[in-house]
Amino acid sequence: MIWQDIRRIRDEAPLVLNITNYVVMNTTANALLALGASPVMAHAIEEVEEMTRMARALVINIGTLSPPWVEAMLLAGKEARRRAIPIVLDPVGCGATAFRTNTAERLIEAIRPTIIRGNASEIRSLVRTGPGAKGVDSRHTPDEILEDARALSLSAGCVVSVSGPVDLVIEGERVTRIENGHPLMTRVTGMGCTASALTGAFAAVNAQAFDAAAHAMGIMGIAGEQAGEQARGPGSFQMHFLDALALLTQSEVAQRLRIQP
Amino acid sequence: MIWQDIRRIRDEAPLVLNITNYVVMNTTANALLALGASPVMAHAIEEVEEMTRMARALVINIGTLSPPWVEAMLLAGKEARRRAIPIVLDPVGCGATAFRTNTAERLIEAIRPTIIRGNASEIRSLVRTGPGAKGVDSRHTPDEILEDARALSLSAGCVVSVSGPVDLVIEGERVTRIENGHPLMTRVTGMGCTASALTGAFAAVNAQAFDAAAHAMGIMGIAGEQAGEQARGPGSFQMHFLDALALLTQSEVAQRLRIQP
Amino acid sequence: MIWQDIRRIRDEAPLVLNITNYVVMNTTANALLALGASPVMAHAIEEVEEMTRMARALVINIGTLSPPWVEAMLLAGKEARRRAIPIVLDPVGCGATAFRTNTAERLIEAIRPTIIRGNASEIRSLVRTGPGAKGVDSRHTPDEILEDARALSLSAGCVVSVSGPVDLVIEGERVTRIENGHPLMTRVTGMGCTASALTGAFAAVNAQAFDAAAHAMGIMGIAGEQAGEQARGPGSFQMHFLDALALLTQSEVAQRLRIQP
Repeated sequence: MIWQDIRRIRDEAPLVLNITNYVVMNTTANALLALGASPVMAHAIEEVEEMTRMARALVINIGTLSPPWVEAMLLAGKEARRRAIPIVLDPVGCGATAFRTNTAERLIEAIRPTIIRGNASEIRSLVRTGPGAKGVDSRHTPDEILEDARALSLSAGCVVSVSGPVDLVIEGERVTRIENGHPLMTRVTGMGCTASALTGAFAAVNAQAFDAAAHAMGIMGIAGEQAGEQARGPGSFQMHFLDALALLTQSEVAQRLRIQP
Repeated sequence: MIWQDIRRIRDEAPLVLNITNYVVMNTTANALLALGASPVMAHAIEEVEEMTRMARALVINIGTLSPPWVEAMLLAGKEARRRAIPIVLDPVGCGATAFRTNTAERLIEAIRPTIIRGNASEIRSLVRTGPGAKGVDSRHTPDEILEDARALSLSAGCVVSVSGPVDLVIEGERVTRIENGHPLMTRVTGMGCTASALTGAFAAVNAQAFDAAAHAMGIMGIAGEQAGEQARGPGSFQMHFLDALALLTQSEVAQRLRIQP
Repeated sequence: MIWQDIRRIRDEAPLVLNITNYVVMNTTANALLALGASPVMAHAIEEVEEMTRMARALVINIGTLSPPWVEAMLLAGKEARRRAIPIVLDPVGCGATAFRTNTAERLIEAIRPTIIRGNASEIRSLVRTGPGAKGVDSRHTPDEILEDARALSLSAGCVVSVSGPVDLVIEGERVTRIENGHPLMTRVTGMGCTASALTGAFAAVNAQAFDAAAHAMGIMGIAGEQAGEQARGPGSFQMHFLDALALLTQSEVAQRLRIQP
């Protein structure tokens, strides 16, 4: 079923609208192209609703936020909601500042994302307050991550996808773990943002948001493994990662995928 | 004559001012540097006119547009016009939203670009209205593309450069076709934007805008072929493309160039 | 002592806040990650002070300036000053337009950077006015560069780090020269900006700002040499540069470092 998604992305080249951060625009556009999707980046309030109507998925990423962008995210998100276009929200840096946490909460409330995809600290900041809520690099036990992600899934009414040494995809009581990946993925900027963008591409072709989120994380991890095996360091990793995304074959994916249950 | 342009770019390192989109700023700056030109990126209304006066070409690209940037494009474009500095306009995504189409039309009217460089859909959106005008990925026959480009050349009074499997450069009744290129060029973000930036570098050293536009597309296609022959996928393509631009030799260019008539 | 800094960066992964230009955000984030630091990019006035309080160094780069960003730079810089967090200022393009020169002067006055890192023309524009002050590519003799950097160090009360064929680090009467580097470093956009970002990482772990600045330039030059020896051109140089930063070993650094006195 993961391969069916990839075939559809390659065949249909779904348009994925990204309202994302400056740091990763180039790399996430290239990752979407390598996978077979069609990326577009736009953020002007004058056009985001019109652009949203052309897209098959909307990815909102708050990595380099400012008020005019928040307004565009709200407009695009509401339009996507009205048209039942799947929305992926990446709450980058959520918990680090009040502005990010408040914006993420406001977006969740107003646009009801289909999938929230972040790391353990970002997810935690959306369900806990007070001491322990902050800290980009705070450590979390697997059980805490599971508990936080489930709480967010229930409160926000959406799929939650948490990246980490083992990725989790959660929707209410349902859980999937993806064990693919490579340590070099943490040494390249924007790999989380790329995971969110690819999640948008999978959601564009697979109406089952839970499956789309899990497939995206599986493909991220597999391409990461392939790149990591060929790379000397983080520079060559980036190059091999894009090549791997473009060259994925059904048998390689089947052999490498470590997803459970 | 194409080699004379490259030699002049390498010798003179002309300053090319880019008011361009966030996605491609890094890659187009690197392509200009690899070719031998000096890129500068600026967009504040406080400085774009002053920066324009130092530049030998101005490249305006509407890929991630917002109103303050439109104002800067108008200021810089008018200053370039007053000083006879060549202007390349890339109407990225034109036709996809009213904001982009209107902005491109406004820029053409106000600053009279020397060269408009886009893909078939973007060019079409500037000459046709109504059904069939929209659609980033709509298909166009070679005859339709030729007709649209000629119509835009006549109405805008400028050279029109259309990228595609075969690139066209048109000025009124005059036409040149460039047949260089590689399929991987469509799998990397910003190759069109790079073509526009390089067109600016060629226009900086060659007062014949028609020739400058054709030479830029020839060099894009040749570097693309060289990169495509060495690349495994879109990630390694990007690396080889920049290397190829920097390492071009007169004999390779002469051997590979497929331009007619 | 240079190796002690690198070990601390790798062990402590200090958070470096960058308010920087659009062109280099991705590449400087990757360079910081490759070295072992933790980059964050933010620019909203709503959060820059809060983000500054979490950071161990602040890097301000005026490469693609606009008024809202200047306001954020002032807020973040003043907060860093209050908390004794080291500040690196990169006055990109200073001297090219009045807006940049005035902004750089205003920032120096208001936030008193710990280290100013730029090229000879940028440094000159901050100490001289009138004819000869302008010109991104003007030539400077080693003696002129030394004189300008010393004048700026004395007037701004900070360390001045000047990149060039030989890098200089100056604080009042104290001078160090770093002779590492490779010609391809001038053919890739943002290498100066990367030097400033890495200077931030070194300043985060070494309270001696003079030493931090010199160590950063040494490591830039060494990684540049290693990349230059392996690269075919500027495209592959970028990849090898990031790999080299991540793979630096104590013996390689000791062997290659050419710093005096």
